[in-house]
Amino acid sequence: MAVDLLGGDDAPDVVVDGALRAVRADPDLHLLLVGPTKAAGVLVSALDPAQRARVTLRPARTAVDMAADLTTARADTTVRAAVAAVRTGQADAVVSAGSTGATVAAAALGLGRWPDTRRPALAATLPGTSGPVVLLDVGGSMESGPTTLTRHAVLGAAYAAISHDLVAPRVGLLSVGTEPGKGDRSRRLAEPLLSAVELPADARYVGLVEGYDVCLGTRADVVVTDGFTGNVLLKAIEGAYAMAGGPPPDGGAPRAAALLGVAGTVVVCHGAARPADIASGIALAAHLWRRAATDRVAALLAADRIDRTTDTEVRTS
Amino acid sequence: MAVDLLGGDDAPDVVVDGALRAVRADPDLHLLLVGPTKAAGVLVSALDPAQRARVTLRPARTAVDMAADLTTARADTTVRAAVAAVRTGQADAVVSAGSTGATVAAAALGLGRWPDTRRPALAATLPGTSGPVVLLDVGGSMESGPTTLTRHAVLGAAYAAISHDLVAPRVGLLSVGTEPGKGDRSRRLAEPLLSAVELPADARYVGLVEGYDVCLGTRADVVVTDGFTGNVLLKAIEGAYAMAGGPPPDGGAPRAAALLGVAGTVVVCHGAARPADIASGIALAAHLWRRAATDRVAALLAADRIDRTTDTEVRTS
Repeated sequence: MAVDLLGGDDAPDVVVDGALRAVRADPDLHLLLVGPTKAAGVLVSALDPAQRARVTLRPARTAVDMAADLTTARADTTVRAAVAAVRTGQADAVVSAGSTGATVAAAALGLGRWPDTRRPALAATLPGTSGPVVLLDVGGSMESGPTTLTRHAVLGAAYAAISHDLVAPRVGLLSVGTEPGKGDRSRRLAEPLLSAVELPADARYVGLVEGYDVCLGTRADVVVTDGFTGNVLLKAIEGAYAMAGGPPPDGGAPRAAALLGVAGTVVVCHGAARPADIASGIALAAHLWRRAATDRVAALLAADRIDRTTDTEVRTS
Repeated sequence: MAVDLLGGDDAPDVVVDGALRAVRADPDLHLLLVGPTKAAGVLVSALDPAQRARVTLRPARTAVDMAADLTTARADTTVRAAVAAVRTGQADAVVSAGSTGATVAAAALGLGRWPDTRRPALAATLPGTSGPVVLLDVGGSMESGPTTLTRHAVLGAAYAAISHDLVAPRVGLLSVGTEPGKGDRSRRLAEPLLSAVELPADARYVGLVEGYDVCLGTRADVVVTDGFTGNVLLKAIEGAYAMAGGPPPDGGAPRAAALLGVAGTVVVCHGAARPADIASGIALAAHLWRRAATDRVAALLAADRIDRTTDTEVRTS
């Protein structure tokens, strides 16, 4: 697992702490720490010799500035170095709490995108009342038209089946009501596409769902929305659990999400991630890699012969 | 208070029950019940004579079908009759749990819109850690471009000052990060407009805020977003509180919201409102009317001489 030591608001300290927890929690885990030697040295010296043998260092110095324009970001960032390590076979997955945009760009450029997938999606899994609920996109792309929403429904269904063993997942489109036609222009244009698209893993489109369904999961196992709405929604749920005195026993809003649509295992952690969040992001990456989730999702999509015409973004204006 | 007896998923029973609670809770409250005679009769017969004297009936038969195309909706709906009662001075405010779109359309048509306000906004108030947080728009309009977001910031600031006695409210724009430039195209275009606009009531624009801030209120007292995002957000917060075993002691996600931008007091309740939600919607309408909130907000906006050029919607594509 290639870990971006400089990603996140409180990097590298929080990332180092999280990586340390992950190494201790999982005896089969090997980490490739990508970042400054000094920060990594603190981690390595805190481990016992057996744990130390499972940690490798790859020096890289420049973090992505959260506010930087992506086009001017320097090429030698830690997240790009982590992606390069996966491309060259030195690592199996990337974990970063850095700028989501920079991670998505680095992964799409360095690992390639899946066929028919122009815009990668971040999928977060919340605990519902009767099983996991996959919410996507939670920030992989900011502008999601009807065709992107439809493609993300396909990706989410395959991911739910492979990653969470969900059988025939129910896929819903997030909107402001459940009656057909509710929502903004993008949702109204997406509804007929979603009704017509062939979903993998025996998934079925169940229509429009509402905000509660993201938390409860009563109507759908996979909830599709645009990256802007998904991101603010996930953080609002986190805020609500904080106000309520803590998340429910099965867990609250996740602070790590899987990037779907790129040819590799990439996990994005929350910029304000705490050590436990980094550790859970590393654990998620390990889980996905051990099930060969990326390859199996890609195979599922190829087998279902998704219509390539869905890759043409419909203009909504 | 004109109450739409046929608005809501479980109307008229739930609305009748809620109106009954409101009459009993507030000895100064008079209700004009707009709907079928039979449903209203059940309510009136359950009251004691003194309470009965505070209830008037206005027969109207047709509810708005939640799925109906607004242009084909029949003119004699209960919500239109309730709005007409305000226009003619028979009532001071409208409360409906019916279709939001139909209520907004009826109110805009029947009462008129404020100057410079093309799209009315629904404002919901959540309890934050250090005071109320006003979230708008939670569904008044589905398509909110940068100029609408800016206008809603002005409305929200005035509403927070008048309705909640907030002094110099902090106004934030909801986005996916706090660094300038974070978000989709609409948010990026709104940022310079918000930085330049003159806000009423000594309010100040504090920049971008995130999903948590809606619940916690640490960064802003007024959070501005588009009606689609605000609506799904509010319902997700409600779902999170349900998952966490109930809302915090100070209250959870409100199920009644004030309509801003029309020349009258209008409160929209959640379509799935329970009797307590209807009662709190009626109480909110009474609170707003007693403070003359609509007139005072309108006066505040006129006094601040908001630049009329902000009424021209910027094309975002």
